[in-house]
Amino acid sequence: MIPGPINYSPEVLQAMSHPSESHVGPAFVKVFGECLEMLRQVFQTSDKGSQPFILNGSGTLGWDFVAANLVEPGDDVLVLHTGYFSNSFAECFETYGMKALQVKAPVGQRPSLEEVEDMLKQKAYKMITITHCDTSTGVLSDIKAIAELVRRISPNTLIVVDGVCSVGCEDIQFDSWALDLVLTGSQKALGAPAGLSIIMASKRAISVYENRKSPPASYYASMKKWLPIMQNYEARRPSYFATPAVQIIHALNQALKEILKIGMQSQIAQHKETSTKVKSKIAAMGLKTVCIDQSEGSNGMTAVYLPPGVQNTDLLPKVAAKGVIFAAGLHKEIATKYFRIGHMGVSVTRKERGDIDQALKALQESLNECGYVCTA
Amino acid sequence: MIPGPINYSPEVLQAMSHPSESHVGPAFVKVFGECLEMLRQVFQTSDKGSQPFILNGSGTLGWDFVAANLVEPGDDVLVLHTGYFSNSFAECFETYGMKALQVKAPVGQRPSLEEVEDMLKQKAYKMITITHCDTSTGVLSDIKAIAELVRRISPNTLIVVDGVCSVGCEDIQFDSWALDLVLTGSQKALGAPAGLSIIMASKRAISVYENRKSPPASYYASMKKWLPIMQNYEARRPSYFATPAVQIIHALNQALKEILKIGMQSQIAQHKETSTKVKSKIAAMGLKTVCIDQSEGSNGMTAVYLPPGVQNTDLLPKVAAKGVIFAAGLHKEIATKYFRIGHMGVSVTRKERGDIDQALKALQESLNECGYVCTA
Repeated sequence: MIPGPINYSPEVLQAMSHPSESHVGPAFVKVFGECLEMLRQVFQTSDKGSQPFILNGSGTLGWDFVAANLVEPGDDVLVLHTGYFSNSFAECFETYGMKALQVKAPVGQRPSLEEVEDMLKQKAYKMITITHCDTSTGVLSDIKAIAELVRRISPNTLIVVDGVCSVGCEDIQFDSWALDLVLTGSQKALGAPAGLSIIMASKRAISVYENRKSPPASYYASMKKWLPIMQNYEARRPSYFATPAVQIIHALNQALKEILKIGMQSQIAQHKETSTKVKSKIAAMGLKTVCIDQSEGSNGMTAVYLPPGVQNTDLLPKVAAKGVIFAAGLHKEIATKYFRIGHMGVSVTRKERGDIDQALKALQESLNECGYVCTA
Repeated sequence: MIPGPINYSPEVLQAMSHPSESHVGPAFVKVFGECLEMLRQVFQTSDKGSQPFILNGSGTLGWDFVAANLVEPGDDVLVLHTGYFSNSFAECFETYGMKALQVKAPVGQRPSLEEVEDMLKQKAYKMITITHCDTSTGVLSDIKAIAELVRRISPNTLIVVDGVCSVGCEDIQFDSWALDLVLTGSQKALGAPAGLSIIMASKRAISVYENRKSPPASYYASMKKWLPIMQNYEARRPSYFATPAVQIIHALNQALKEILKIGMQSQIAQHKETSTKVKSKIAAMGLKTVCIDQSEGSNGMTAVYLPPGVQNTDLLPKVAAKGVIFAAGLHKEIATKYFRIGHMGVSVTRKERGDIDQALKALQESLNECGYVCTA
């Protein structure tokens, strides 16, 4: 029950152990092509100019993909900061020679729309990045409202969303909200094992890449290399740049089919319902979430402050002894003061597993064992 | 029977579908740490200064790792060319601002030691790269002899080996031959599924990285980011930069245990024996290999010219109908004129599978069906 890698369905795990296949054979080309098609539905885009990418790498590779292809050295990037991952994304931009200015919010909060508006009025940013759900805090950004703001104040600014902990459990309307790029990993709400960097780019983003003055600043993360490969796989034509992670793509195919069978709106609604339940139980135990305003909490995870006198080193092993794994804190300002619960994928949509109830029960009992009497 | 992804043992496939685990939990940290330790044996290094890396990506990511960490813009790199992959490695260096000079050999051959010696005497190259076995031609480079030459003529030049199609089936004595970096992928002779970029760096390579003037030119492939992570995992301490491909690392752990149980010397000898058998059967069928001098042929694969009048589009489907998959040509100068047979991993070491005999029989029968009467 950590915010990724999450629990996988037995069918997804079965797909992982599919017998070996050639990465350019017709059977696998079909599997890969279907994944690309299904991603269009997950991201709610029907614009034929939108381009999905499935790269062999962690979600982090998506940052290099953005920094090496869509911006050029000297460009100004505005990074909305909601935790650990915004800092890292900014560092990635600096690695490639961009100037990344962060709008920082206090821990547990997000920059206000007024602050963002002020920043956008001061300078013509080439790009704005928004961490949809920062996995270190569980704070959710309002990407729809920010995108509207950007389109109104600074229409040429590219809108990039880090959706690592949101794609598959939060509403993301790629076309309607006019997003330019959303990146994620395979191991969170999409319900596939870790190993794939998944990206959706808009027609406008592709055009910005095509009109860049300098060549892409990475070889492995080069859009020049990957764009024709993705177009070919989706058209069921074999194509080669670097060997894809065949087994994980089989698993992703199964995981995406499971999500689309549920339907995106039901998938998101079930995650919202579960998140509300978890957060209300947490409150009933007398605990506070890192996310201060409950209306800004993510659907897929909850970061919870430890009660006074309880340490992660005491609590988490007691929880683990009951068969439940939570994650420790990650945000460096408060790392030892909180822990994180993931509630994504089959733990949410297959209620017969009982994962959520087992996790909440394990938490309450372990807190009692640590000497903290839950008020619930 | 393609030169990767290869067939996996049932135990490796079973390991792929291990139940989901936290990437920082003690059970997985042990699995990852063991992989790093076992790689030291595979690369035959006992120097504590040697550093293994397991990154989430294709073998290709290893090129970015080399280009972004061990050389700097303007540095001269000598690339020994034996096929498709040398061209690509040179392009990767150019992406990062190095001057990559290729010593090209005609198709099916490798640069002579005399040519390499001449080049090394003309300029102080920061790095030389050697594709151990170019998967497009099956030509094997003599890395031991080249390394001796470099140490004699230009001792400060870093020696980098692309071992994507050689690690696990060719002799690579990392310490004895004084190599600086060898990179590979998980899906060839190591016998694990595609998805991992595997690297062994020498103490000297680490020191060159530590003394570079500019910061690493990639975020995702940054040695600065990954070095402490690998050191921590090997010391059984959880550590985080980007989420590792947990399931594939489980599979790699199993695959490496299988190789080390056989023993590196026996593993290599069995591949050599199988390769000799395949190549002699190919010759007996009246076919020519792309590799001209048989003493320069790789242990893990054989690239074979089509006989007159036979096309891959006719031959390969007939072979496939017999349950055997070969790969088409890849080297652009001769792509339609040849095909490739992989003979690595369990197809070699588990003779009871009968993979090699089945493949050779399927080839001979299919050639006959194509109207080519084998002389065998």
